[in-house]
Amino acid sequence: MKPSIPQGTRDFSPKDVRRRQYILNTIKKVFELYCYQPLETPSMENLSTLMGKYGEEGDRLIFKILNNGLNDPKNTDKAKAAFENVLSGKNDTNLTERALRYDLTIPFARYVVMHQHELSFPFKRYQMQPVWRADRPQHGRYREFWQCDADIVGSTSLINEAELLCIYQSAFHALKIPGIAIKINSRKVLAGLAECCNGTHLLTDITVALDKLDKIGREGVEKELVQRGLSEEQVTFIFRYLDIKEGSNDEKLTRMSELLKESSVGRDGIEELRNTLTYHAALCNETPESKVIIDFTLARGLNYYTGIIVEVSTNAVKMGSIGGGGRYDDLTGLFGLKNLSGVGISFGIDRIYDVMETLQLFPETLESSTKLLFVSIEPRAENIIFSYLKELRAAGIAAELYADGGKFDKQMKYADKRNIPFVGIVGSSELEENIINLKNMKSGEQVKMNITGVIDMIKTQ
Amino acid sequence: MKPSIPQGTRDFSPKDVRRRQYILNTIKKVFELYCYQPLETPSMENLSTLMGKYGEEGDRLIFKILNNGLNDPKNTDKAKAAFENVLSGKNDTNLTERALRYDLTIPFARYVVMHQHELSFPFKRYQMQPVWRADRPQHGRYREFWQCDADIVGSTSLINEAELLCIYQSAFHALKIPGIAIKINSRKVLAGLAECCNGTHLLTDITVALDKLDKIGREGVEKELVQRGLSEEQVTFIFRYLDIKEGSNDEKLTRMSELLKESSVGRDGIEELRNTLTYHAALCNETPESKVIIDFTLARGLNYYTGIIVEVSTNAVKMGSIGGGGRYDDLTGLFGLKNLSGVGISFGIDRIYDVMETLQLFPETLESSTKLLFVSIEPRAENIIFSYLKELRAAGIAAELYADGGKFDKQMKYADKRNIPFVGIVGSSELEENIINLKNMKSGEQVKMNITGVIDMIKTQ
Repeated sequence: MKPSIPQGTRDFSPKDVRRRQYILNTIKKVFELYCYQPLETPSMENLSTLMGKYGEEGDRLIFKILNNGLNDPKNTDKAKAAFENVLSGKNDTNLTERALRYDLTIPFARYVVMHQHELSFPFKRYQMQPVWRADRPQHGRYREFWQCDADIVGSTSLINEAELLCIYQSAFHALKIPGIAIKINSRKVLAGLAECCNGTHLLTDITVALDKLDKIGREGVEKELVQRGLSEEQVTFIFRYLDIKEGSNDEKLTRMSELLKESSVGRDGIEELRNTLTYHAALCNETPESKVIIDFTLARGLNYYTGIIVEVSTNAVKMGSIGGGGRYDDLTGLFGLKNLSGVGISFGIDRIYDVMETLQLFPETLESSTKLLFVSIEPRAENIIFSYLKELRAAGIAAELYADGGKFDKQMKYADKRNIPFVGIVGSSELEENIINLKNMKSGEQVKMNITGVIDMIKTQ
Repeated sequence: MKPSIPQGTRDFSPKDVRRRQYILNTIKKVFELYCYQPLETPSMENLSTLMGKYGEEGDRLIFKILNNGLNDPKNTDKAKAAFENVLSGKNDTNLTERALRYDLTIPFARYVVMHQHELSFPFKRYQMQPVWRADRPQHGRYREFWQCDADIVGSTSLINEAELLCIYQSAFHALKIPGIAIKINSRKVLAGLAECCNGTHLLTDITVALDKLDKIGREGVEKELVQRGLSEEQVTFIFRYLDIKEGSNDEKLTRMSELLKESSVGRDGIEELRNTLTYHAALCNETPESKVIIDFTLARGLNYYTGIIVEVSTNAVKMGSIGGGGRYDDLTGLFGLKNLSGVGISFGIDRIYDVMETLQLFPETLESSTKLLFVSIEPRAENIIFSYLKELRAAGIAAELYADGGKFDKQMKYADKRNIPFVGIVGSSELEENIINLKNMKSGEQVKMNITGVIDMIKTQ
């Protein structure tokens, strides 16, 4: 039997784990600096918690867990009836009552509703956990992947939006990813556009069409709008809207407030964008490597957004968005808790990983935690090496010995393959002099020194 | 609809996450110091990887994932036939081909076999991930829980056993858990006992009975041995074995080598215990709070162990073992890679958590990462507070403001409930003087100082 793993899943080698941990820890530090608190929810949720929350397509992609004990005769009849239901596309808790987490947002909303009486609002949480989707696996798309979210619920202040923009900037700055564009827009501005086109009922049609602008271009959008029944006049108005894309953020806002002046919701949206940008400028420094840019074509697919929306990309690598989020006014309403406004952002960990790998942004020190390997073919050296190891570890330096002995070359080759930076050779002459022949594996340089010298040298690296 | 989570699963609140992360990070640092490397495997494995590896009871407790697309007419016939198979207790990949990880050992063995040509042996890895079991939930037993393992494969040296004992000692020392007893024994000594009782075929019977000694006492064990068909003479010999329990480790080894002198495997086991203890004494310092104790009654349930076995407990709290492990000679043989010896240990994270909570060993600083909350009812103070936040965060201090404003008491109450140590009050007089009225929430003390003073004060806390 040749072992394998399920399609769309991955083993993470030591190098992979260290690199992903580096990304997650960097982002985590920024979340903590802005006082977001960690939360973790179970991998399994009740099927009823998840179903119907992600649209029809989402429902299909949820991994369901088979109930245990189906072959117990007590359960057989119920299980059979349940199976018929499942075959006809219905859910039945007699066959499957649990499913794997599909995202971190719905479990968060469920948590907030369950714990509403213990929590202090506003409640800021971050969550970094894997999620599972039965999508067709393809390059860069996995069935098990990590999400990394920060949300605040119970506050309507736009200071939160501004701080989340600061979090994006700080995190990508700390990861040293260049060319970051943080595009923002407001669902209210889009609603204003719909209103000015004679009807809020057009909002979804317009949003869906605009969302495709990057993919299908202006002509494609025009065609789609016409197909969706919009008049020539309406389409013309939408293109006047789309043409507001040059100049500074201030200039764009001024032009847009002129275009949408008849719409109260549109004016609100523009005001919110303006205030968010003002707060943001007061709360953190823009760097040349990351800019907050108003982009009125930004729509975001998810339909629970109601206010400011945001999406992040880098121009340094050809890649889709590496982050996104927005304000939602009624997420917890799904579980019966009304009127709790929230805003949140998400980091696309897998794509960030790919960007960093392409640009070679991972620090070299992540390669190995081992600083020193002792190599010896002198059996009498064992005890002195044990005492060296004790001293190194007491000094917080990760060190080991090649425990099984054997040929010198084999031991050196092992150190090399493992990317261990220093090798400590203790032969019979070193043993007598109480010293270590320390080899720098990168430069090839060899120096003889005592254990105190070795500790000092590695500590100052 | 009132939301809930599946039986046997848990939400981890910010406090819970911080506490568990504290345990995991402390252990992780020790693993890294001993040069173990992180590995992560997928939550889902192919069902065929897991089935038959954990005994009949284990097979029953594996959570299986329903294949997606069963209600697609293309799949219906196959699914129906597969369902009949499942009802009769068989597995069928047309209904379920994946399952959730049941432990970290089998996925590790599967990983090593799959990547044998890229890995450098000996390969030391640690793994900290959740596992899932469909056990009946009860106090302290969950359906989703964390395991935390360190293993080395490809080395037969007992230095590894000794270092793993050091890892236990270092980790529990760092966690400040008192009264740690690390009991060790060898499966070879048990095999020697069986041999001296006239027959290695008795090994399992003896092991199973001894494993119950703590629960059923000497009389219970005697009864069980007789029921299992052992003669009076054999039982007497076993009790002579069990009576070797007083004195130092050296004394016990001397007495045991006398008792088992006729058995070659028994002599081997005693020699291995002796060498492991010698290595251990050379590699790390025993502390009064943790002792390595030979316990010849230690058997360990899992039958893949073949050499040294170990189990950890604390006498400070009434609780089962909080760690355990041992050497196995053929784990990867399950997946076709023969003759790769390994040894590993495991930390019982949930029990360690309970011990630390009972003994109040979690540092108080884990309560909140937020150091300072700004409170203000003066709208004109907003801009200066923004600039303070910018300075605090640049200095690495987690600070926030109560963004929605509102009554002073409400804002103070929020800081209190959140366990935030400092509140910075900026009223109209503070605003004019460019200072902050800093309240220590624990002592109640209030001091007025400028932002530089606040940063210095919090940094030196």
